[in-house]
Amino acid sequence: MSDKPTQPAQTVQPTQSTRRTLGEVSEREVIQAITDAAPSVINGDDAAVLFPGQPNSRTVVATDTLVEGRHFRLDWSSPEEVGQKAILQNFADIEAMGARPTAALLSLSAPPETPLEVVRGIAAGIGTRARRYTAELVGGDVTKSNQLIVTITAVGSLGGSRSPLTLDRARAGQQLVAHGRLGWSAAGLALLERFGRADIPRELTSLVDAHCAPWLSPNRGMIARAAGASAMTDNSDGLLRELQLLCQRSGVGIDLDSAALAPDDLLVHAGQVLGVDPWDWVLGGGEDHTLLATTAKSAPSGFRRIGDITAGTKSAQHNVCMDATPIQHSAANQGWESFQ
Amino acid sequence: MSDKPTQPAQTVQPTQSTRRTLGEVSEREVIQAITDAAPSVINGDDAAVLFPGQPNSRTVVATDTLVEGRHFRLDWSSPEEVGQKAILQNFADIEAMGARPTAALLSLSAPPETPLEVVRGIAAGIGTRARRYTAELVGGDVTKSNQLIVTITAVGSLGGSRSPLTLDRARAGQQLVAHGRLGWSAAGLALLERFGRADIPRELTSLVDAHCAPWLSPNRGMIARAAGASAMTDNSDGLLRELQLLCQRSGVGIDLDSAALAPDDLLVHAGQVLGVDPWDWVLGGGEDHTLLATTAKSAPSGFRRIGDITAGTKSAQHNVCMDATPIQHSAANQGWESFQ
Repeated sequence: MSDKPTQPAQTVQPTQSTRRTLGEVSEREVIQAITDAAPSVINGDDAAVLFPGQPNSRTVVATDTLVEGRHFRLDWSSPEEVGQKAILQNFADIEAMGARPTAALLSLSAPPETPLEVVRGIAAGIGTRARRYTAELVGGDVTKSNQLIVTITAVGSLGGSRSPLTLDRARAGQQLVAHGRLGWSAAGLALLERFGRADIPRELTSLVDAHCAPWLSPNRGMIARAAGASAMTDNSDGLLRELQLLCQRSGVGIDLDSAALAPDDLLVHAGQVLGVDPWDWVLGGGEDHTLLATTAKSAPSGFRRIGDITAGTKSAQHNVCMDATPIQHSAANQGWESFQ
Repeated sequence: MSDKPTQPAQTVQPTQSTRRTLGEVSEREVIQAITDAAPSVINGDDAAVLFPGQPNSRTVVATDTLVEGRHFRLDWSSPEEVGQKAILQNFADIEAMGARPTAALLSLSAPPETPLEVVRGIAAGIGTRARRYTAELVGGDVTKSNQLIVTITAVGSLGGSRSPLTLDRARAGQQLVAHGRLGWSAAGLALLERFGRADIPRELTSLVDAHCAPWLSPNRGMIARAAGASAMTDNSDGLLRELQLLCQRSGVGIDLDSAALAPDDLLVHAGQVLGVDPWDWVLGGGEDHTLLATTAKSAPSGFRRIGDITAGTKSAQHNVCMDATPIQHSAANQGWESFQ
């Protein structure tokens, strides 16, 4: 993760002109602020016509939404971080098929009292992150609502003739490999809930950054597909929950390696500060969008082995073990529920 | 429009089991209700891998959002109608490029007290309309919010080597042609505001239907492109506003033909009932998503001539005339503003 850009929470110093709200400017100005912050030559007509893909490439699409107060808080995250997170979580879904993200659309719903500067910041975060993938914000829609809601639709390109890396293609005998942190986002959220953003202990700020603007090295999904991975997903809702779904879809079991997953020093320290078992974050925490792949070959570049795929059945309730022992951890029965 | 299906407002007769709310069921049940109502074999993984397009075809994408209380009311529209309208307005954007709609993604944000039956109805409306285009709901996302918000992203395929029908390709000497009603949706909204859905005068219900679930004959955009149309848009925000944008992008003027646009008997009658000049609806009303194209050839099948493209400049403020006279109508200076 050495190429992770530094992402401090931005302290916006609004001038008179940037303090204007969406209700005070025309729709055209709102759209202009977005396209200035995340420009693309193919944005601005009824629909965006994407650049032609490679011959025989297929189009891959996914959508994911961030709701203020539910998935982010603007006293914890800067608008730029919200935009970055929105891109990362959507592009991770494209990458998890082994495809290359190429474009994004933004549907932004916001109350009229939202400062234009917030919209500009979200668009800047989207533009910055999309460019890391040589992707562009190619279209979108703005609407008035009671709550700030950021919906991104990601578009990708799946080249070549290999299968996409679907959830049903894990096979016993493969190893389970991961690209990205596990547990950092959940630890960051716990720290924010205890301290707020301003009072986070200095040595733990990387965990909070990992929550507010998680980072993955671009195009690792495509690399894994080229290197022979067969199934892949990303960690949105918690490691055990994601792996259970993979097991059910593929009819396999998983044996995790506790040594490979053991919480690092930072998670252990945060656990001590908060009085929490850091394994809770590793096994139950989602939102880091870490790529989880299965492969019969060696771990693709940027991935590390975290376990093995074992024999199993689609109907088994709990097919995930650690060190050959069934996991009793409460995270095995929990996970993110959208409407609770 | 003889193939328009009848779309009565559905009177849901909930059984005990269908009265459950989103907060009372698991996220899995919500997603299952959606995929049962709008099934697709390529839905259900991290992202959807679309069927391969024709050789050399390009992918076209657009997104549009409906917010409860802003774009629809559930005492005026059935959930099925909301889903139908969400598909129509997004697919019209794909069609307006001359492309063929192939897939849709749904991002649904809803309060936990929303009945599951409402979600099922929206998804059924999406599925019904998408099938008319041989398109499918291929993915999506559900989240908790304060307000019911339906965001659709539409995906289409642009085959062959002709240019897409962008806003900047109108040329003087072409004729302006339209497919679809003009003014009916706005008249329907005015009727709903006066009478509510239950008390609409019987002879005027088609206008209300045109507002709640507007209808276009599928694939007219692709037909127009094949027949030599060069520019196209759809009427989202009002006829004069859309045409002014077309003029500015193309650097042309437009001379509308009053005989071709004159309000039909139903609009005239609704105008008498409400004490409104029906020209307001024709010139200022949007949301019918009528396709507006320019062509140097004869009107494509399903399109009728409504005016001519004349010489003009990109900087002209008002380039739209009627019968060679500048339009003084107030609709020329109005239009839909998202945050007012």
